[in-house]
Amino acid sequence: MAIRVGIMGYGNLGRGIEAAIRQNGDMTLAAVFTRRAPESLTIRTEGVPVYHADDALLHKDEIDVLILCGGSATDLPVQTPLYAAHFNVVDSFDTHAAIPAHFAKVDEAARASGHVGIISVGWDPGMFSLNRLYGSAILPDGADYTFWGKGVSQGHSDAVRRVEGVLDARQYTVPVESALSAVRSGETPVLTAREKHTRVCFVVAEEGADKARIEREIKTMPNYFADYDTTVYFITAEEMKRDHSGMPHGGVVIRSGKTGFDGEHRHVIEYSLKLDSNPEFTSSVLVAYARAAARMHKEGQAGAKTVLDVPPAYLSAKSGEELRASLL
Amino acid sequence: MAIRVGIMGYGNLGRGIEAAIRQNGDMTLAAVFTRRAPESLTIRTEGVPVYHADDALLHKDEIDVLILCGGSATDLPVQTPLYAAHFNVVDSFDTHAAIPAHFAKVDEAARASGHVGIISVGWDPGMFSLNRLYGSAILPDGADYTFWGKGVSQGHSDAVRRVEGVLDARQYTVPVESALSAVRSGETPVLTAREKHTRVCFVVAEEGADKARIEREIKTMPNYFADYDTTVYFITAEEMKRDHSGMPHGGVVIRSGKTGFDGEHRHVIEYSLKLDSNPEFTSSVLVAYARAAARMHKEGQAGAKTVLDVPPAYLSAKSGEELRASLL
Repeated sequence: MAIRVGIMGYGNLGRGIEAAIRQNGDMTLAAVFTRRAPESLTIRTEGVPVYHADDALLHKDEIDVLILCGGSATDLPVQTPLYAAHFNVVDSFDTHAAIPAHFAKVDEAARASGHVGIISVGWDPGMFSLNRLYGSAILPDGADYTFWGKGVSQGHSDAVRRVEGVLDARQYTVPVESALSAVRSGETPVLTAREKHTRVCFVVAEEGADKARIEREIKTMPNYFADYDTTVYFITAEEMKRDHSGMPHGGVVIRSGKTGFDGEHRHVIEYSLKLDSNPEFTSSVLVAYARAAARMHKEGQAGAKTVLDVPPAYLSAKSGEELRASLL
Repeated sequence: MAIRVGIMGYGNLGRGIEAAIRQNGDMTLAAVFTRRAPESLTIRTEGVPVYHADDALLHKDEIDVLILCGGSATDLPVQTPLYAAHFNVVDSFDTHAAIPAHFAKVDEAARASGHVGIISVGWDPGMFSLNRLYGSAILPDGADYTFWGKGVSQGHSDAVRRVEGVLDARQYTVPVESALSAVRSGETPVLTAREKHTRVCFVVAEEGADKARIEREIKTMPNYFADYDTTVYFITAEEMKRDHSGMPHGGVVIRSGKTGFDGEHRHVIEYSLKLDSNPEFTSSVLVAYARAAARMHKEGQAGAKTVLDVPPAYLSAKSGEELRASLL
């Protein structure tokens, strides 16, 4: 029987989940939940009901896994423990420093209800975390590097939009090619924020706005830009729409380490992502882990999990036998 | 208490295990077993006993995990089921087509004895298999590519050495750069063996040997070379020793796939390895999975496993809490 998936929240991520479910023959979309008026929502999958989020518990017997598509700032800290008390859940909670506290809350709720809650699923945290783990376990005498981009950072774009006189903005994070090359070649330099990434901003300014001031305010913004080399380009609203409406992203995790009795051999492990659509890729990872959540629950497991806890084979619709014959 | 590791077989892989154990503070080398005369062996770790392989069972209470460092052709098909009846074991069995049968035999022995046997550990099979799994689970609408090299292939080097008039040989497998670039850019071409890899042979010939004939015999050798573009260089024994005594290898696994309601977004996931020493890297992977085997056994698990079955966190000496705080 197909795994029945519910989507909580129908933004970019929710739509990505809907599209991804179509690519997985063993899964079916059971319902979409929204905080908007359900009748105002038109989804892409025929015959699937849209319910108000407040009514979610009425439908818990129709859903094997609920994928939570809210934001990490205010939605998920409340939603994931709340729904883990009634559903198997998967979320993409990505406030790195708050993950241990989030895990503890979800774990308590999920254990009490006998459900599985897989948190912080996506690519960072997520696939990048996995690769940091595999790399450091295999090459304990080594160093980790994570480079992000080239890609759009939502948080930095929002920060630029808050500058007075800015109508719209898009910020790209770009790895510094020379740093990346050095690390790829097996060197293990200590790199500052500035040496690893540059930031490029495309800004639509209000008519008559003081562009020099806007540029200065962006470049000196603490935390977001002050520690980086930042370039600001002013463009028109038409150019913004034409050239910058996609949500590409990506990045690289590199583990560089030594082996041998005298550390005489160097090894470089690199995991890289080039993504046309950040939300759709994240959704695809969430859907694979929804399969794992359903399977772990069926086996009687309960509590919070992360990608580090899930046996890789649980992500696949294929049996262990099929996987051993085809992938090993 | 430290995990007590035994090494069965003291060749390149066994020495790599010995070196890797020194990098892992939670593990200790308990014993080395050899089919040679034990007193003829000098190992690098002081105070560790060397025993004859025939006496292994006498020492089973001194060992938490036995890492089997024999070859896949004749050693491991016998050794892994044999020792799984008495020890937790890890092997690097790499005859891809024979893995299901090997798994079944190890599973039976390990279940009967209540031990864990993790088979086919290394990088291919091993880390590459894992990345094929993660990639295909996340991007089901896509294609897989594996490129090997640049690196020394032992099997192909041996095949060249069997040609009459050849004193020594080293064969490098080299990915075709244009094919690799096409796949990295998101294209999903169908590639023949010839289009993916070239083969480069360095050969020391007997004095007076017919080099034209040797070159022809290599290039037309079925399975090994006939389906590839092969280049043969004749060099001296001194050049062989000076320039080709290392065992570098590596390769790339790429998953290229589409998402979106109309498959409109492309994504490329790439996992790459650049290894100075193929056996030492393989050993490092084996040691990480030895930790997992000990832990799974402690939890009461039994039977054969592959890298696809092992929760990633089990490879690390750190606790779940530490991992969540530092890697996610």
